Amino acid sequence: MQDPDLLMDYCVADVSRTPSFFFNGELCIDTSLVISNHFFTSSLSKPGMTGNIFGSNTTTTTTKNLPGSNAQGLTMARIDLAPGGIVPLHSHPRGAEVVILIKGTQVMVGFVETKENKLYVQQLRPGDVFVFPKGLDHFLLNLDGATSATAIAGLSSQNPGEQVVPWATFQSMPNIPDEVLEKTFKVSAQDIKRIRKNLGG
Amino acid sequence: MQDPDLLMDYCVADVSRTPSFFFNGELCIDTSLVISNHFFTSSLSKPGMTGNIFGSNTTTTTTKNLPGSNAQGLTMARIDLAPGGIVPLHSHPRGAEVVILIKGTQVMVGFVETKENKLYVQQLRPGDVFVFPKGLDHFLLNLDGATSATAIAGLSSQNPGEQVVPWATFQSMPNIPDEVLEKTFKVSAQDIKRIRKNLGG
Amino acid sequence: MQDPDLLMDYCVADVSRTPSFFFNGELCIDTSLVISNHFFTSSLSKPGMTGNIFGSNTTTTTTKNLPGSNAQGLTMARIDLAPGGIVPLHSHPRGAEVVILIKGTQVMVGFVETKENKLYVQQLRPGDVFVFPKGLDHFLLNLDGATSATAIAGLSSQNPGEQVVPWATFQSMPNIPDEVLEKTFKVSAQDIKRIRKNLGG
Amino acid sequence: MQDPDLLMDYCVADVSRTPSFFFNGELCIDTSLVISNHFFTSSLSKPGMTGNIFGSNTTTTTTKNLPGSNAQGLTMARIDLAPGGIVPLHSHPRGAEVVILIKGTQVMVGFVETKENKLYVQQLRPGDVFVFPKGLDHFLLNLDGATSATAIAGLSSQNPGEQVVPWATFQSMPNIPDEVLEKTFKVSAQDIKRIRKNLGG
Amino acid sequence: MQDPDLLMDYCVADVSRTPSFFFNGELCIDTSLVISNHFFTSSLSKPGMTGNIFGSNTTTTTTKNLPGSNAQGLTMARIDLAPGGIVPLHSHPRGAEVVILIKGTQVMVGFVETKENKLYVQQLRPGDVFVFPKGLDHFLLNLDGATSATAIAGLSSQNPGEQVVPWATFQSMPNIPDEVLEKTFKVSAQDIKRIRKNLGG
Amino acid sequence: MQDPDLLMDYCVADVSRTPSFFFNGELCIDTSLVISNHFFTSSLSKPGMTGNIFGSNTTTTTTKNLPGSNAQGLTMARIDLAPGGIVPLHSHPRGAEVVILIKGTQVMVGFVETKENKLYVQQLRPGDVFVFPKGLDHFLLNLDGATSATAIAGLSSQNPGEQVVPWATFQSMPNIPDEVLEKTFKVSAQDIKRIRKNLGG
Repeated sequence: MQDPDLLMDYCVADVSRTPSFFFNGELCIDTSLVISNHFFTSSLSKPGMTGNIFGSNTTTTTTKNLPGSNAQGLTMARIDLAPGGIVPLHSHPRGAEVVILIKGTQVMVGFVETKENKLYVQQLRPGDVFVFPKGLDHFLLNLDGATSATAIAGLSSQNPGEQVVPWATFQSMPNIPDEVLEKTFKVSAQDIKRIRKNLGG
Repeated sequence: MQDPDLLMDYCVADVSRTPSFFFNGELCIDTSLVISNHFFTSSLSKPGMTGNIFGSNTTTTTTKNLPGSNAQGLTMARIDLAPGGIVPLHSHPRGAEVVILIKGTQVMVGFVETKENKLYVQQLRPGDVFVFPKGLDHFLLNLDGATSATAIAGLSSQNPGEQVVPWATFQSMPNIPDEVLEKTFKVSAQDIKRIRKNLGG
Repeated sequence: MQDPDLLMDYCVADVSRTPSFFFNGELCIDTSLVISNHFFTSSLSKPGMTGNIFGSNTTTTTTKNLPGSNAQGLTMARIDLAPGGIVPLHSHPRGAEVVILIKGTQVMVGFVETKENKLYVQQLRPGDVFVFPKGLDHFLLNLDGATSATAIAGLSSQNPGEQVVPWATFQSMPNIPDEVLEKTFKVSAQDIKRIRKNLGG
Repeated sequence: MQDPDLLMDYCVADVSRTPSFFFNGELCIDTSLVISNHFFTSSLSKPGMTGNIFGSNTTTTTTKNLPGSNAQGLTMARIDLAPGGIVPLHSHPRGAEVVILIKGTQVMVGFVETKENKLYVQQLRPGDVFVFPKGLDHFLLNLDGATSATAIAGLSSQNPGEQVVPWATFQSMPNIPDEVLEKTFKVSAQDIKRIRKNLGG
Repeated sequence: MQDPDLLMDYCVADVSRTPSFFFNGELCIDTSLVISNHFFTSSLSKPGMTGNIFGSNTTTTTTKNLPGSNAQGLTMARIDLAPGGIVPLHSHPRGAEVVILIKGTQVMVGFVETKENKLYVQQLRPGDVFVFPKGLDHFLLNLDGATSATAIAGLSSQNPGEQVVPWATFQSMPNIPDEVLEKTFKVSAQDIKRIRKNLGG
Repeated sequence: MQDPDLLMDYCVADVSRTPSFFFNGELCIDTSLVISNHFFTSSLSKPGMTGNIFGSNTTTTTTKNLPGSNAQGLTMARIDLAPGGIVPLHSHPRGAEVVILIKGTQVMVGFVETKENKLYVQQLRPGDVFVFPKGLDHFLLNLDGATSATAIAGLSSQNPGEQVVPWATFQSMPNIPDEVLEKTFKVSAQDIKRIRKNLGG
């Protein structure tokens, strides 16, 4: 998917307003009020909190913390993995992703394509780059049980979205009816109940 | 996602050739060889075979059976559901989908969005229409245990792709490493083994 | 033509508001107010009224009756043809169309390309599919003088537009100056007057 | 419609080759063989021949006479109108058009929109500019019965296409079945025969 | 770059309003208020004032003087060159440009590509056409020291933008720090001061 | 600018072939020959050589070193700045850029917009992010005369292009005629000669 293109040099998102209306885009500030700081953020400068059930944290630029990125068709993300931590299977409906390992020893990355469900897997060392094709399920796993890891990613949309497979399947709001999950995964109602419990809800 | 647009009236896919090269698109036949039949197919006219573990079958137009659809940015599909059958959770990375129930009594449809994992669910009777937003996980379930159902869908790409959640997660080739699935779904290695077995592989 | 792409999962059209402004798109409702019904419509479930000069009726999904289709890049249509009825020559400036005959015995479909004005014509039986390339003039004619016909179509835009040739040429508001029509079609002023009268205006 | 965008600075069309295959685009020459002349043409420098049934001639840049325009998303055209000449009703499926009258005294231009068939008409003097929205039927008529006129147009596609209404409706190859035209325009078979004869075929 | 495409026949820019908000696009007027004049402008009909340091003037259509061009993906421009005048090196970030020399004797045009900085140069006589690829630096120089020249250009965006090299480098607001210019061009601080002075600021 | 979108999950560039033809895109390998390594590169893992007249080096992913990035709409780059080094004024015609400082103490970044030539400047510390809007001239300068700096950038095209202002203006092949540069920058022939010499050619 490709974000709609620019009709002007930039359209700095207006983060101050409480919107009274919505549309497929973001309101922008008057260009005469634009300053350099609108194109700047330090929100990726600190490690994210990885003390959660997956042991990972992803911090992204958004039109809120980087208003100048509005309508520019890209996002940057910082991925922190605790020792043994995982960014679980997920997809970005609206963007491809290219990731570089900055810190760590060995991170496994992989994705699955749609025609034959082929899995592509690779191990990254610092400085290594991997690309996750647009819209496909992928994951990152820190194989090192003692050292944390950090990666930087570029994504090809200002709002790529993130459909996290365990959340979407087992922790939707409301829950997907059991019958659908039983028939989808060939599991039992007790399996579903147990998985939901383990996932925290 | 939006397919690249046309630079000509049509570009009828050349299905006769064994390609000696590949690119992001399809080779087309010489326009002087184009006939009406290239824009025609009867491949959706018969019910698909629903005697499988999900009790459903989806037949789509493709550039192979409908060569005139190449570069036109759309696909049509016929969905057959056996009594109690399901089109399991899946997404189309490159297309949105609008579906109309043609035959049947009651089909449940639903999808999950990415921000808060909200589930949207609806029950369809014949003539009812539902839209699945682009790239989001969705399903169709025939609630009638006695009557089959048939639906027709339009999709907004010539090749929307189909990432089927159970296949992508538990039946990829090769298998996604157990550690990734255990950490993603908080299940055990035995769970994974059992689910794979039940899914047929 | 390809609709501008999504910057979010969905942007459900706000049909309640009387707009105080307009732009190339639709206002959407606050995502917290979105419900399943916004992605649902039964507006294609009943046959349209075909008692008009052409003996046909096309009912389409729109952002008004299917607000969840906004920004998703597609439309679904139901085409009803009375015995001998016709959807007269028309084009969709912003969309391609794929149509499947659901009910009827024999419907003739065709379109004309722009380079050499080649006509492509086909006869459809129920279950048959045909694709009309984007922006080209096409028609559907129910060859059966006794039985009505119904078709379902997918179009590759949320608002493909419909330029109906007889209306655009002979029934525009105001009328196209006679001199233009005489020189375009090589007809006389009386011809034009008569044609307009026969077309109902 | 928007042409697919560039993945390089330019992709100069290869006009020397007899293609052995086709695709939605043009083959380009090796960039090391590109010269300035590929971006140049004098094909619009002479008046076109207007001694035909419409009294007009349109000469356009194409990827053949201006190979450097390939993949650049635009076309330029020269429109010559004999005294009283007309560019008959036509549409460009894949492009909008902006036209400026260079020479002449008074040219009427107009187009019809699709929702209510509203006609927009204007008279141009030299230096005046008019824009024809994408995909809509439009015409140009030289109101001066003694002086010729010349206009220059820019179009927003490398191959906008041109569906000329009289040709598409009455002079397609093969002819559109009379029944379709009779029902579309509410004319008789004799009318159709006469119109075809007057249009030259 | 390709402007976002239309979701309607046209979206005539609302030039009367003082905007209370901004977005990547233009507000449009209610379609019921659209008249032919919105698609018309005479703003290119008179020569522009070329009595400036470059001896040139470019007048373009905009959504302000040609409101009907909004969302149509194109612009037309009139370029006037005094004897010996120049349109200095500049680029259009969001559009390609095709230009035709209407009046004059000999105008040199050229552009530079990005891979190897190859320069493509051509001399135009009246009626000659040249295409400047999208986003690349280019210029037009009237080689005739006695006769003025006029050209018409089509550009593939409603707002292609214009980054004029001397202004962007030496006359930005505020000035680019001397250190950046010294290191970029390998010039001295005095050079920079002198160039700025000569450029008028 | 937005790269044409995917019609398949991925289209891994075929880097082995010496092309016998060219088009606006890249040839891909047979999907059955795709392996994980095609989505992987270590080409950004080592510092680039900064011993040149600017004291900087940019290493990017390309379809050659990261074939899986073909058609995915993005590029990743590693920018190395020597103490006091500069990435001189340049633009990316086909992409926006988001950059994060990984290593260093203080790097000045800035860009110039096209309407009023406003300069936006910022100083980055490690972890800070800045976005350069698409197609606009920008620079990066290492303000630290003792410590080198390294940044990682994401760009929104598989081939954004890079028009380096000093190269394009003063070192094109062949040279831009002196008259053009004199009139563009208001410099003398001797200035031009000297600048070219200082720039190394």
